[in-house]
Amino acid sequence: MAEVKTFGVVLFEGFELLDVFGPLEAFGMLAHGGKWRVLTVAQRAGAVASAQGPKAIADFSFEDCPHIDILLVPGGVGTRREIANESLLESIVDRAGKAEIVTSVCTGAALLAKAGLLDGRSATTNKFSFKWVTEQGPRVNWVKQARWVDDGKFSTSSGVSAGIDMALSIIARVAGNETAETIATRMEYEWHRDAAWDPFARTHKLVD
Amino acid sequence: MAEVKTFGVVLFEGFELLDVFGPLEAFGMLAHGGKWRVLTVAQRAGAVASAQGPKAIADFSFEDCPHIDILLVPGGVGTRREIANESLLESIVDRAGKAEIVTSVCTGAALLAKAGLLDGRSATTNKFSFKWVTEQGPRVNWVKQARWVDDGKFSTSSGVSAGIDMALSIIARVAGNETAETIATRMEYEWHRDAAWDPFARTHKLVD
Repeated sequence: MAEVKTFGVVLFEGFELLDVFGPLEAFGMLAHGGKWRVLTVAQRAGAVASAQGPKAIADFSFEDCPHIDILLVPGGVGTRREIANESLLESIVDRAGKAEIVTSVCTGAALLAKAGLLDGRSATTNKFSFKWVTEQGPRVNWVKQARWVDDGKFSTSSGVSAGIDMALSIIARVAGNETAETIATRMEYEWHRDAAWDPFARTHKLVD
Repeated sequence: MAEVKTFGVVLFEGFELLDVFGPLEAFGMLAHGGKWRVLTVAQRAGAVASAQGPKAIADFSFEDCPHIDILLVPGGVGTRREIANESLLESIVDRAGKAEIVTSVCTGAALLAKAGLLDGRSATTNKFSFKWVTEQGPRVNWVKQARWVDDGKFSTSSGVSAGIDMALSIIARVAGNETAETIATRMEYEWHRDAAWDPFARTHKLVD
């Protein structure tokens, strides 16, 4: 029997709801096939309040969390505090080093950048907080207009809902395009398959 | 000072993650303005497991939950069990009667229909489980092709991601179109503003 692979999402106080649960919806549907499972991890297991108020449960602490094959770091207002949380950044570096694919949604890229994981790589983030995020990683090649950016094992997506498109692209990579299309249809989601699609870069005046 | 209004989401074991957290993301952004708050409610307060596994916290039980102005009933595999849960249906009928607007996402419409709330009204639901849902409400005018359907105080949306479009349309109704557009942009979400847009009805062979 083949090994079950794990999609693991990092939680911290003030995480953005859709950054977490959009990709978890898509990977949760993949997990129905039995070859994947999903989990949440935080510095302490238990309830974690989102930026919007509603709380989710972290299934594991980093200490007792099983191996994560695909790691996701969400954004949210909590990232403004967590970029100074050395312990969290160390746990992310540790898990990122062992993971097959490392991803971020929205301002989650600030945590990957601050941890040095994106140095010398191309990456993107949300467009509303572009200036603040990019200041956290002066050695990152920040892409102003992109729904998401793939560079080696790292995939970084733009704001909030962009995480769903990136997640579907990764499902296509690890489980085939047909499976990703089936999941998008089950979600009744109009998947943006083009990583370069990004009208919001213009809305936020990052490009002409 | 104006009264703070409440967007309340019902949770039950096996709720669909994105049905809940897509609309909560949008209304959570509305709540930043101070005129709205968001909450979750279930038969018992505390942890509730989603269809995908990750758990969320119900802030309140129905007994101790404050007044809800806009009620949302999500779908998910748990609805197959909850349509036989008389106590939950009674709580939904009670809260729906007091609410200004009552909404569902995906198979959440099965619960509203089974409770008799949609009798004589037009409504829609997700397209993958269309047959099962519509059997729960033989006196409902089920619309096969619609992203969402508004009928009086009831708004019912199609599958999973459709809840985000419906939520934005309701935000436009209660807080103005400019606010809804700002929130969609902050979510970097390509909002489907047309309630009749529904390519998935054809995918699932409900229309030619």
